[in-house]
Amino acid sequence: MALSKNRIKYIRSLELKKNRKANKVFLAEGPKLVGDLLEHFACRFLIATAEWLSEHKQLPTNDVTEVSEEDLARASLLKTPQQVLAVFEQPDEAMDTSAISRSLCLALDDVQDPGNLGTIIRLADWFGIEHIFCSPNTVDVYNPKTVQATMGGIARVKLHYTPLPELIRSLKDIPVYGTFLDGENMYTQSLSTNGLIVMGNEGNGIGREVEQLINRKLYIPNYPSDLETSESLNVAIATAVVCAEFRRQAASL
Amino acid sequence: MALSKNRIKYIRSLELKKNRKANKVFLAEGPKLVGDLLEHFACRFLIATAEWLSEHKQLPTNDVTEVSEEDLARASLLKTPQQVLAVFEQPDEAMDTSAISRSLCLALDDVQDPGNLGTIIRLADWFGIEHIFCSPNTVDVYNPKTVQATMGGIARVKLHYTPLPELIRSLKDIPVYGTFLDGENMYTQSLSTNGLIVMGNEGNGIGREVEQLINRKLYIPNYPSDLETSESLNVAIATAVVCAEFRRQAASL
Repeated sequence: MALSKNRIKYIRSLELKKNRKANKVFLAEGPKLVGDLLEHFACRFLIATAEWLSEHKQLPTNDVTEVSEEDLARASLLKTPQQVLAVFEQPDEAMDTSAISRSLCLALDDVQDPGNLGTIIRLADWFGIEHIFCSPNTVDVYNPKTVQATMGGIARVKLHYTPLPELIRSLKDIPVYGTFLDGENMYTQSLSTNGLIVMGNEGNGIGREVEQLINRKLYIPNYPSDLETSESLNVAIATAVVCAEFRRQAASL
Repeated sequence: MALSKNRIKYIRSLELKKNRKANKVFLAEGPKLVGDLLEHFACRFLIATAEWLSEHKQLPTNDVTEVSEEDLARASLLKTPQQVLAVFEQPDEAMDTSAISRSLCLALDDVQDPGNLGTIIRLADWFGIEHIFCSPNTVDVYNPKTVQATMGGIARVKLHYTPLPELIRSLKDIPVYGTFLDGENMYTQSLSTNGLIVMGNEGNGIGREVEQLINRKLYIPNYPSDLETSESLNVAIATAVVCAEFRRQAASL
């Protein structure tokens, strides 16, 4: 069956947030990712090659189009299209801030790069972090580049877009961490198994208003060296190094 | 002065490895990165806006073209061109494998994504790792996306493309680490301050031949959870978490 021009246009329109938002959908591509997401999100429609379809007879949607690799490439946003592309419904998630008192959560203050956000979701998934609170200016979780970079983590980690100052002010006696050059060496601190770890924007770090609400400032030590070295880490890398240390301490308690 | 069509064509041709290699050059963009690299690499030529040039009167090249933002955008490979673009000469680096017995080094077995490689160079710089040995199929360090992602780390961290099995076989009594699902929990191991940490390809991990030469298999524990969680970490994230633990142990000796 050929793919209609309208459908190709619709799929490609989902590169833009306003179109994703208007339709309350998002796009995912590739056998591994789509396979993962089919178990967690309602699927509006799916297009795939005969090869993929022959291995997936039972699908949770009736709107399935078999396409040639050529047609798939016309719809795909990837450089190298991968057998299957699906459009899913954005779920309605209720925000549950009580998770912050029970468990370790992340907050992102204006992270801008879709790949960084996706990588952070993937590593949150690895480290068993179930909730990420994002400032309203943080890049959209349903950006196709973000979805792809989560490698399926988007199915398990919940994102909540909400103004961070209000969120943090609503927390009572809960540790709120952030990394700063003038923070305390995180390896010398006793880190909690609950609370919020705030990570900042790629260029500007954590905003001033949020910074003033952080009650536990940490520093990620670099390697003592006489050489001139890098001044900073990529935000996803910094998030990983911090989360790993929280989880190392928790496991060795 | 207007930018010639030929020069625009030349700059844009540097997106391809064969053209970078034929000319032994690479491209970098943006005030921060170009500023860093001007101190470390020979500059063939530079194009910049009047604004940038007014703040940089002393330049180590005579081939400087002042351009409008519009002309800069015609040459730039970035979505958002940033004031300055420069073409640098690729340095000739002699490979020094004795660094592996003296210090901690990285080896990359077919890392394919330019952004991942750049991020790894940036974090190596942060963690004071001065040498990265790359399998010949690892993505080119002079890929513009890699150069941008290093955030200047490319000026300090040395990359050497060489077959990894031969390299590892030439090492005598030196620890060679890699991460595997069946490795030892890295937090329970005593990690050395020298040796080689091997990281693998995004999809396939470490190749079989290299795996057989690894004498210290490590495992990065994820967070114990009853939930289904992610099966893997992005290679740059895994590299960071491993390097951070080596440096944490070294600092607490």
